[in-house]
Amino acid sequence: MARPTPLSGFPEWLPAGRIVEQHVLDTLRRTFELNGFAGIETRAVEPLSELLRKGETSKEVYVLRRLQAEADEAAVVDDSSLGLHFDLTVPFARYVLENAGQLSFPFRRYQIQKVWRGERPQEGRFREFYQADIDAVGAGELPFHVEVELPLVMAEALAALPIPPVRILVNNRKVAEGFYRGIGLDDVDAVLRSIDKLDRVGPEVAADFLQQEAGASAEQARACLALAGISGSDARIAEAVTRLAREFGATSELLETGLAELVALVEAAAAVAPGVLVADLRIARGLDYYTGSVYETVLVGHESLGSICSGGRYDELATDGANTYPGVGLSIGVSRLVSRLLGENLVRASRSVPSAVLVAVTSEDTRAASTRVAGSLRARGIPVEVAPNAAKFGKQIRHADRRGIPFVWFPGAEGAPDEVKDIRSGDQVPADAAAWEPPSADLWPAVTAGEA
Amino acid sequence: MARPTPLSGFPEWLPAGRIVEQHVLDTLRRTFELNGFAGIETRAVEPLSELLRKGETSKEVYVLRRLQAEADEAAVVDDSSLGLHFDLTVPFARYVLENAGQLSFPFRRYQIQKVWRGERPQEGRFREFYQADIDAVGAGELPFHVEVELPLVMAEALAALPIPPVRILVNNRKVAEGFYRGIGLDDVDAVLRSIDKLDRVGPEVAADFLQQEAGASAEQARACLALAGISGSDARIAEAVTRLAREFGATSELLETGLAELVALVEAAAAVAPGVLVADLRIARGLDYYTGSVYETVLVGHESLGSICSGGRYDELATDGANTYPGVGLSIGVSRLVSRLLGENLVRASRSVPSAVLVAVTSEDTRAASTRVAGSLRARGIPVEVAPNAAKFGKQIRHADRRGIPFVWFPGAEGAPDEVKDIRSGDQVPADAAAWEPPSADLWPAVTAGEA
Repeated sequence: MARPTPLSGFPEWLPAGRIVEQHVLDTLRRTFELNGFAGIETRAVEPLSELLRKGETSKEVYVLRRLQAEADEAAVVDDSSLGLHFDLTVPFARYVLENAGQLSFPFRRYQIQKVWRGERPQEGRFREFYQADIDAVGAGELPFHVEVELPLVMAEALAALPIPPVRILVNNRKVAEGFYRGIGLDDVDAVLRSIDKLDRVGPEVAADFLQQEAGASAEQARACLALAGISGSDARIAEAVTRLAREFGATSELLETGLAELVALVEAAAAVAPGVLVADLRIARGLDYYTGSVYETVLVGHESLGSICSGGRYDELATDGANTYPGVGLSIGVSRLVSRLLGENLVRASRSVPSAVLVAVTSEDTRAASTRVAGSLRARGIPVEVAPNAAKFGKQIRHADRRGIPFVWFPGAEGAPDEVKDIRSGDQVPADAAAWEPPSADLWPAVTAGEA
Repeated sequence: MARPTPLSGFPEWLPAGRIVEQHVLDTLRRTFELNGFAGIETRAVEPLSELLRKGETSKEVYVLRRLQAEADEAAVVDDSSLGLHFDLTVPFARYVLENAGQLSFPFRRYQIQKVWRGERPQEGRFREFYQADIDAVGAGELPFHVEVELPLVMAEALAALPIPPVRILVNNRKVAEGFYRGIGLDDVDAVLRSIDKLDRVGPEVAADFLQQEAGASAEQARACLALAGISGSDARIAEAVTRLAREFGATSELLETGLAELVALVEAAAAVAPGVLVADLRIARGLDYYTGSVYETVLVGHESLGSICSGGRYDELATDGANTYPGVGLSIGVSRLVSRLLGENLVRASRSVPSAVLVAVTSEDTRAASTRVAGSLRARGIPVEVAPNAAKFGKQIRHADRRGIPFVWFPGAEGAPDEVKDIRSGDQVPADAAAWEPPSADLWPAVTAGEA
């Protein structure tokens, strides 16, 4: 086998990078659990029919076939074929329907798993990546306050990470739909798709899109762009939208409801986490299943990364005809975030192995004594490894140094006490394996903001 | 969408089951990290050429195709096609070769990920399941003591789980190969494959296999079966094997080396964890890449489950021609273990959500007060959720009870103190959200042996 090369779009980390990723995943999980979300995992595959039912990424599905399938069988891709999930929302909706009889509603779950998208490789596009989702779904109904709570849980989770501050941008589908219909534009999805492109293409091209794709007049396009220009974090956004609606002769009960929700959301959020949530009427979210609040999140100073945490309220995603489970959910694109953190050296791990201590081996004859020291330290929760061979101590210390292990332990010969050396300072002191503890900051690898 | 049904071979757990699985995964991870193993993850896919290079499960690979691939492209499965990994050993060998320049050797890693096998569904066979692996690889060489250390790390990890005790059965390829060649059987792989079937088919059929597949005489087959009947946990196994070898006129340096290693392994293990490791010369392990110690593990009282943790020493698995990285590794089949634990009620979670406390809501007007209580408890590391609506308190208590949440918190009205109720005992006492703590046993869901 020749030396293998990486596969584009399938990120892998060296051990120190994985410590950073694991720290991010652990921190998210802890915040989700502190907020009472139950963890679930779903299988990696769904029937193709499910994957193609909703969402705009349907083209990017990886379809599976068994290598040993008959030729006939292998050539056919039909509804019963299995594909890898491209997000965690579609599988979650299926899980809720499948297990509705055994779940208690409202059901709040988090889910941290990899997803796959069969895109052609291109810069910054991953074909395999971690998502970390939270959703709350009700049976038949779900109160509005969940639309306030969930983005704040995400804000809390993101604030616990060693990353720059985030800003969560929120809009409300009822505002958008009420306004668009109010000014006479009924193909709401087409308008949303055009507005969703605004950041990338600029207002002039977006106006063209609105006229060509959504059937807008120049005047209507101008109204849509004016709406998209409104942002703020208090009741003045409602006044601005209402003024604009009047200017274009739009009145709509849906618009009123949406504005009330949007203001309630930003005001409640401002009381808990000032400055984190901002209403921004440019936020469209391409997916057609959102029906209330929608969210996107930017990393301040890294806006080019795009939204790192998105979601919204959906009312019809999980329904089996007889029962419907409305929900609110947000999803963090973890791999893209971690890739940026590592790529720009924004975050680093203090070492590449868990071990706080390397126990030196004086000679292979006394390896058992070193193993006993390791067992004694480990029994008290100290991560430790034993030197792989009885090389000269200088070489054993270099072994620790290369991995960032801060302490080397020397078992005492013939009744002499053991000693432990902090290889950063060179300090070496007598120590008892049944009692010694490293400083708590050294116990596990630390993940800290880097120097970028 | 009609109510979906489960897919055979793709296990999913309800939230309480997932708490058990997560507990198992967390416990394994902690033991691996305490022993200084660095965590890595590899991508889910490998080039088909890699997957088919080694191992006996090559027929079971799931091949990927992009849904939007051209028809021509989709029909072709060649070496550049991607398949889902069927274990973590092949990807790990590739990772080591790919990153050798940036790793420090010996490199010790753990890896806990799902793997996939495109088998036809049948009872007890999973098509998607978790494996938890540890491996240590050296650059060019790896000392024997690693073959002693790694099964003991697994024994420690398994002992930390709420499961029945395990027994690790060990053999040594050098013993098997030295003995077989010594009695004149040179197709060692064929002999091993026949012996590997012994437990399933019995000695008579195994003797037939040995004669038909491995070219053994009746006498040679008898010798192989006699060897397979030897087991023990001290130097007497070496005596028994040596006696048997003499009886059949076999002498072999390789056999001597293997016996010395096997005895050293069981004796060193007996000193650390008495009774856990047993030499059993029946253990063959089908895979052709093992070259030294081989391991299988049974759950005492659940032998029908088969081996829950297997592995061995390999010398040639990771090589790029110029450099070779010999290793020792073991792999736990986590999903099959968890499935048995849940299916037979051997283990249970004390509740289905992380929350230790449900904060009641007196009226929707005072939800913000309940949210503040929750924030205060959470800031001190107590998992908590707020009631979804201001129903009658009895209903809110039932909401907690259904999920197994032990405490319900009642915010005090107009200056009255808050109170907290243990809904198991009914005891209700005044409490301060800035100071109250639940008993530590109630803080997180407990996973304990069940009543089966």
